Amino acid sequence: MSGSPALIALDWGTSSLRGFLMDETGAVLEQRGSGHGIVNLPEPGLPGFEAAFDAMCGAWLDRFPGLPVVAGGMVGSAQGWREAAYADCPADARRLAAGAVEVGTGRGARILIAPGLVCRAPGAAPDVMRGEEIQIAGALLAHPELATRSLLVMPGTHSKWVEVEDGRITRFATYMTGELFAVLCRHSLLGRLMTDEAAAPEVAEAAFARGVAMARESLPGDLAHHIFAARTLGLTGELPGTALKDFLSALLIGHEVASGTRRAALDDTPLALIGEDTLCRRYGEVLRQCGSPPAVQLGNTAPAGLFHFAIAAGLVAPSASGAQETLP
Amino acid sequence: MSGSPALIALDWGTSSLRGFLMDETGAVLEQRGSGHGIVNLPEPGLPGFEAAFDAMCGAWLDRFPGLPVVAGGMVGSAQGWREAAYADCPADARRLAAGAVEVGTGRGARILIAPGLVCRAPGAAPDVMRGEEIQIAGALLAHPELATRSLLVMPGTHSKWVEVEDGRITRFATYMTGELFAVLCRHSLLGRLMTDEAAAPEVAEAAFARGVAMARESLPGDLAHHIFAARTLGLTGELPGTALKDFLSALLIGHEVASGTRRAALDDTPLALIGEDTLCRRYGEVLRQCGSPPAVQLGNTAPAGLFHFAIAAGLVAPSASGAQETLP
Repeated sequence: MSGSPALIALDWGTSSLRGFLMDETGAVLEQRGSGHGIVNLPEPGLPGFEAAFDAMCGAWLDRFPGLPVVAGGMVGSAQGWREAAYADCPADARRLAAGAVEVGTGRGARILIAPGLVCRAPGAAPDVMRGEEIQIAGALLAHPELATRSLLVMPGTHSKWVEVEDGRITRFATYMTGELFAVLCRHSLLGRLMTDEAAAPEVAEAAFARGVAMARESLPGDLAHHIFAARTLGLTGELPGTALKDFLSALLIGHEVASGTRRAALDDTPLALIGEDTLCRRYGEVLRQCGSPPAVQLGNTAPAGLFHFAIAAGLVAPSASGAQETLP
Repeated sequence: MSGSPALIALDWGTSSLRGFLMDETGAVLEQRGSGHGIVNLPEPGLPGFEAAFDAMCGAWLDRFPGLPVVAGGMVGSAQGWREAAYADCPADARRLAAGAVEVGTGRGARILIAPGLVCRAPGAAPDVMRGEEIQIAGALLAHPELATRSLLVMPGTHSKWVEVEDGRITRFATYMTGELFAVLCRHSLLGRLMTDEAAAPEVAEAAFARGVAMARESLPGDLAHHIFAARTLGLTGELPGTALKDFLSALLIGHEVASGTRRAALDDTPLALIGEDTLCRRYGEVLRQCGSPPAVQLGNTAPAGLFHFAIAAGLVAPSASGAQETLP
């Protein structure tokens, strides 16, 4: 029951490029992937973007000339094809469409690039996202029950905690948890006692629970002290080297959860996890051990988000779209 | 008015070795330094320790045969000349002497090596120090007013916050602040916008104050979020690249101070900073901006600490020592 092609949507990040050929309801008809992220183009500079685009979409455009094309992610950053300046919060798909920029290609295609978002909360440093706003637009299109009010947790190198109200992103905060974990394991003293071999499941679970428990009891400023335990627990033989990464990961995620849930004043706000499956399950377990209500776990919502962006930009007719009714 | 040589004291760390020839009052008659830290010995293994020792102390022992020799620092670690297992808190110089180990050299010298300390607070991960316990013994010898009750802050790669009561170290906590700063600047995204050029003094001061202010308002778990400001403040032009290190440094120290002062329940406990001068002044400024009472700043107390250790071990006769009266 697939419809006819109505849109090409590109999820164009730092290290990879994913393309989706979609019908007028947002169903994915075909998809392609390449390693042509913005730091890994087939040639340097602007021609590299065009070459990567042609390699991925040329055949689609040959078969279906004139299809509209949208793109989101780092392709719109200052290092991207063309910069789409951060749009302000509160923001929804319409705000993304209003802040979009266009590029043209030699073959006559036009590509609408979504902006990132900036959050300027009073008295706080500004915060930014680029790429996640598309995933969020997809989550709200696919799960309209989250649009009224929700807290979206997006684990990753730079995790995002995103507050949604009335279909709009009202506020968000970034946590460098994933990158912190990586640099501590690779470049700090903490890596010395860690082994790559996995611990027995019950040992890993106990180390994980210990990290969460320590995080739950944290006072302001404790993190730089707490992480040293990933050394001393190894030194004193309380944890084997195989379990130190489990401990540190849980400790760092636990600190993030302690802060994120407190900042968002969770109460009975529906909570959703968006991102890579294994990492989302890890966050779900920390949330559970911290006494949070269960979070729904969403898959890859970027294609739906690009479709939502295309509708808001008027590139796909909402009247022809089965998804329209579910728009927040 | 120098006395005659009574002790050779070695401050033997990871990357350097410092030797002090002392009289019976603890006054330093001569001192020498070398790069022969335990990871940089003139030859590998145990002979390397002996070679480094002979190069530094051979001439002293030729002139003054039979002088007692003490050493503290990483030389007593598992990677050192001989391991001196961590002694338990509460601990004073007598406890260090009781846990010391001895090595002999081919030329007949005997070297007494001080142990590190372990702190096992109920419900917390163990904490460890090695080298700082000697500096503390020196601080308490030179500043007996700190021995009754004090909080010693020792800034560094791995800062220590040390609670002293009745002349003994009762409890301490390590903060990986210095290492965290280094790995974030060198190996994380945060380094990208930083420039090595120094900011104008007033710009650096404003960035520093902003970092402290953010840390003062931190809630549990906020650090991984707060550090992202070292990117966004640069991205949005609120801080120049030259001032991002000042901001991040103040933010990290501020988090440490928030935690350290809270854990130690400061009240009117005398506060002292021990360590490298520039870094101590930086910590002093953060403490001031956080509303802490002024901290006295001590210089290098390691020589006095090694002397204190030698007295406790019975290697220097306390009756001959002018410093004896000042022992806690």
